[in-house]
Amino acid sequence: MSSQPLRILVIGGSAAGPKAAAKARRMDEHAEIMLVQREKELSMASCGFPYYVGGTFDDRNLLICTPAGVVRDSAFYGKAKAIEARVETEALAIDREAKTVTIKHLPSDERQTLHYDRLVIATGATPMCPNAPGSELDGVQTLHSMADADALRAMRDARQVRKAVVVGGGLIGFEVCEALRLAGIDTTVIEKTGQILPFLDPDLAKLVENHVRANGPDIIVGNGVAEFLGEEGRLVGVKLENGTELPCQSAVIAVGVRPNIGLARRAGLEIGSEGGIRVNEYMQTSDPDIYAVGDCVECTSLITGKSLRAPYGDIANLQGRVAGQNLIDPGSARFPGITQTGICKIFDYSVGFTGLSVHKAREQGLDDIESATISGLDIPVFMQGKLLISKLVAERATGRIIGYHCIGPGDVSKRVATVAMAIRGGLTVEDMTNADLPYAPPYSLALDHTIVAAHVLDNKLKGRMCGLSASEVKQRADTGADCFVLDTRSPQEFEDMRLGIGERLIPLGTLRARLDELPEDKDTEIILYCKISLRGYEAAAILQANGWRNVRVMEGGIMAWPYAREK
Amino acid sequence: MSSQPLRILVIGGSAAGPKAAAKARRMDEHAEIMLVQREKELSMASCGFPYYVGGTFDDRNLLICTPAGVVRDSAFYGKAKAIEARVETEALAIDREAKTVTIKHLPSDERQTLHYDRLVIATGATPMCPNAPGSELDGVQTLHSMADADALRAMRDARQVRKAVVVGGGLIGFEVCEALRLAGIDTTVIEKTGQILPFLDPDLAKLVENHVRANGPDIIVGNGVAEFLGEEGRLVGVKLENGTELPCQSAVIAVGVRPNIGLARRAGLEIGSEGGIRVNEYMQTSDPDIYAVGDCVECTSLITGKSLRAPYGDIANLQGRVAGQNLIDPGSARFPGITQTGICKIFDYSVGFTGLSVHKAREQGLDDIESATISGLDIPVFMQGKLLISKLVAERATGRIIGYHCIGPGDVSKRVATVAMAIRGGLTVEDMTNADLPYAPPYSLALDHTIVAAHVLDNKLKGRMCGLSASEVKQRADTGADCFVLDTRSPQEFEDMRLGIGERLIPLGTLRARLDELPEDKDTEIILYCKISLRGYEAAAILQANGWRNVRVMEGGIMAWPYAREK
Repeated sequence: MSSQPLRILVIGGSAAGPKAAAKARRMDEHAEIMLVQREKELSMASCGFPYYVGGTFDDRNLLICTPAGVVRDSAFYGKAKAIEARVETEALAIDREAKTVTIKHLPSDERQTLHYDRLVIATGATPMCPNAPGSELDGVQTLHSMADADALRAMRDARQVRKAVVVGGGLIGFEVCEALRLAGIDTTVIEKTGQILPFLDPDLAKLVENHVRANGPDIIVGNGVAEFLGEEGRLVGVKLENGTELPCQSAVIAVGVRPNIGLARRAGLEIGSEGGIRVNEYMQTSDPDIYAVGDCVECTSLITGKSLRAPYGDIANLQGRVAGQNLIDPGSARFPGITQTGICKIFDYSVGFTGLSVHKAREQGLDDIESATISGLDIPVFMQGKLLISKLVAERATGRIIGYHCIGPGDVSKRVATVAMAIRGGLTVEDMTNADLPYAPPYSLALDHTIVAAHVLDNKLKGRMCGLSASEVKQRADTGADCFVLDTRSPQEFEDMRLGIGERLIPLGTLRARLDELPEDKDTEIILYCKISLRGYEAAAILQANGWRNVRVMEGGIMAWPYAREK
Repeated sequence: MSSQPLRILVIGGSAAGPKAAAKARRMDEHAEIMLVQREKELSMASCGFPYYVGGTFDDRNLLICTPAGVVRDSAFYGKAKAIEARVETEALAIDREAKTVTIKHLPSDERQTLHYDRLVIATGATPMCPNAPGSELDGVQTLHSMADADALRAMRDARQVRKAVVVGGGLIGFEVCEALRLAGIDTTVIEKTGQILPFLDPDLAKLVENHVRANGPDIIVGNGVAEFLGEEGRLVGVKLENGTELPCQSAVIAVGVRPNIGLARRAGLEIGSEGGIRVNEYMQTSDPDIYAVGDCVECTSLITGKSLRAPYGDIANLQGRVAGQNLIDPGSARFPGITQTGICKIFDYSVGFTGLSVHKAREQGLDDIESATISGLDIPVFMQGKLLISKLVAERATGRIIGYHCIGPGDVSKRVATVAMAIRGGLTVEDMTNADLPYAPPYSLALDHTIVAAHVLDNKLKGRMCGLSASEVKQRADTGADCFVLDTRSPQEFEDMRLGIGERLIPLGTLRARLDELPEDKDTEIILYCKISLRGYEAAAILQANGWRNVRVMEGGIMAWPYAREK
């Protein structure tokens, strides 16, 4: 009390900044804490924008209120947290020598220079835009700010837009796609690369694509935007790189964000290899009195040890807390890094991931890996279980789990959280084969989906099972490769639905008596499957024991087959 | 192929036994595998019984079918798995010298002696019964076998029973309670000890009790059954130890199970300190050719290292897989132990746990522990979030998480799975403060409930917060202790609902200006709370910074208060 109060300045008022400020206040009632925010709103629930736009809820205030219903405006910060929050105020420059920041109140253009003892940079990120003419047209926008959300919500309520294009097939793109579709708008998602949802391996991505199409929206991959077409300043269509023109009255751009590092760079702070502000595990920049948090920084992958950017709301909050604590008690809190976990609702599917896909692992130089794809129910049939399809990835040499991806109408979120913590704890596939998870029929099968994934991957790692992905099987079928495809389900199941790639039916229960129907050449590749490929796996064991040397199980069975099926 | 096939005999056909047999078959197509089962049915989904009884589904076959709809009878085991499954067959004795088992076919009384190379004991457990006269009456039963389930379901369908008593306030007791209530039967749960759900600490148990009562059933604790009262061989009531008589036409006993170890004991196999068959991590008994799995064995706590019994269906399946693998390839699979994780649906609440409660930890000699109780939503208000109340327990010296308990209408199962994996990975509270979990508004708050629990516990461990449980506050109120109870919510919230224990209202936003309304004596105990006690915690920091030395936060706030509240 006798010492001078600490002067803390936080630049950025969306997520990480307010969290750092609030935590600092709880750590030190006497510090002088000021927060400057360029936008009008403070501490917006921006991840909720798509649900406001789509009409899941109608009260805009819910996006900027505390759970107790108080709007988080400057008055709230002043009264409840004794934090001076200045909105519509931009930080122009940091003078690290003088320990000052020059700010500008945007409406009045008034400038002021503020002293700080400790500074937090939480400047966030800016949506990127495809390099195409016409992006200034009325009707072209992102969904990043409250103003963006307001504009899209107004469009929904006016019911005048009939067709929309979403540019970008990532998480946000599909959240927007769903919102627009729920608003009754014909929507097409454009993805420049060859695949939507780049964090997924292609097979799973294809299954999500099918689900989106089944709900109405169209998806175009491998084709970027060449031009936004306008008439009298208003968007009337999008022209793609291949010349296709898509008439539309709205285009929402969701091709990712770029960290806002200008302020930090001009102040001479270190920028990392991935284009974000470099911080240590205390969230400290290269200047020990300056912390940085949220979408503008890089963090460390707990899987590869490499730097990466992770512009997610939850990570911003975690980092804000760590910085807030270190502002008052330096070195007392650490943010070790992330496993890259995320989830997204796309119509009746949830799409979740933690760690690396096979594809991403290989990109990171992790080559000695193995994966298993499975399908199955989240809870028992008698409890109305819903489908989950997932893929577990591990290092072959150590068995360490490095990735998990799960999609489907079932409870994806729980499975992703489960494996995220397994990865965080450095667990191996073998550890996961014996996970002790909460089991009762309303919540899980006796062997939870995540455990079954570990069992299958354990079988593969130990050489008890050789797998093929659906796409590998499809490729063999398309190229007329010499293989024998065997469906081990029941005749009734075969009647109801089949792959239609020339497969034979021999139900598992009759297989031992009908081995003479299999290829005489024991080196012929035999591909087995069933609904989920458990019976396929059992059949594979039978064939291997009877001398066939090239037996493969199509992983995930017919439920994970993303191509057209015959009825 | 040239060698003699391995002869495997599995005793017990419910869960662990069939799993071991099936896994052994997948490992070795040529082994001779026989399974003997005392009951008529094989591989029943016994955890599903309450949902069949309660009418969640009506097709009894779903309890004994594969997901593909095939009844798991002897014919199925023969055809699909080449396992000879003999039902209604009891194993009478094991001769370890001769490596034989004598079995008896119950309907025919025919005996046979079978040779084995490797044996699996999966004899399960038997429901215990209170030591009270009248338990043989018609209308007194357990819910353990298919026959039990059939009897209760028939009772439901006949609609003649109006009142029922459930004896035992554990997981199964409340699953049965819900089922009977859903069948329209007035139900009372009797618990002999002072508290229902003994794996929970009392405060959480009390909240569950409130929820059960709100749904109709009554609960009587601290009172056991003295006698089952009958007329003409039929149950007409239950007499309690305190003399109370409860008229009822049905009594379901659910006071736990006793492992079936007679066969193993007579064969001279080692029995553990907890009364189950002793096995090593390969699920091997003291005889290396005899494995034991499921409800009849003891396993190891991964938290305390001590032996315990864990008669759960999921654990039985995990152990069965490990034994099945070791039958063919000894020493190739291990079951290291459990963290004791479970869950149960009770009306609109889920009640889940992993690891130890404070109470159970102390019983195990773990005294240097700290816990935090929190309440909060599972997902945002704008996504219709539902309440969760939970308690996280850790060792003070190391920060290692040793327990988590979560209840409420929200998504409990995901949170318990999350922390179960954290415990499995040996994570500390600090690790958990930065967990990277799947965040999007349909699935989580930006800071998931489990992470907030870690934040609060971290604050407590680092001395930033002193907490009191609701029961500790209630006790102070009841005994007229000298303390100052301060509600920091808004006047509107105070109007809507309050504790009614003489608390004062000073909204957080006005507290700094109203410090003069607080006790002058800075040593007075001040107890703060709000709806969930976040504002209460912020208020505590303000008071501490202003010199009050004995400031406490009532953990979980008014949402975790299990006593009567005023409106």
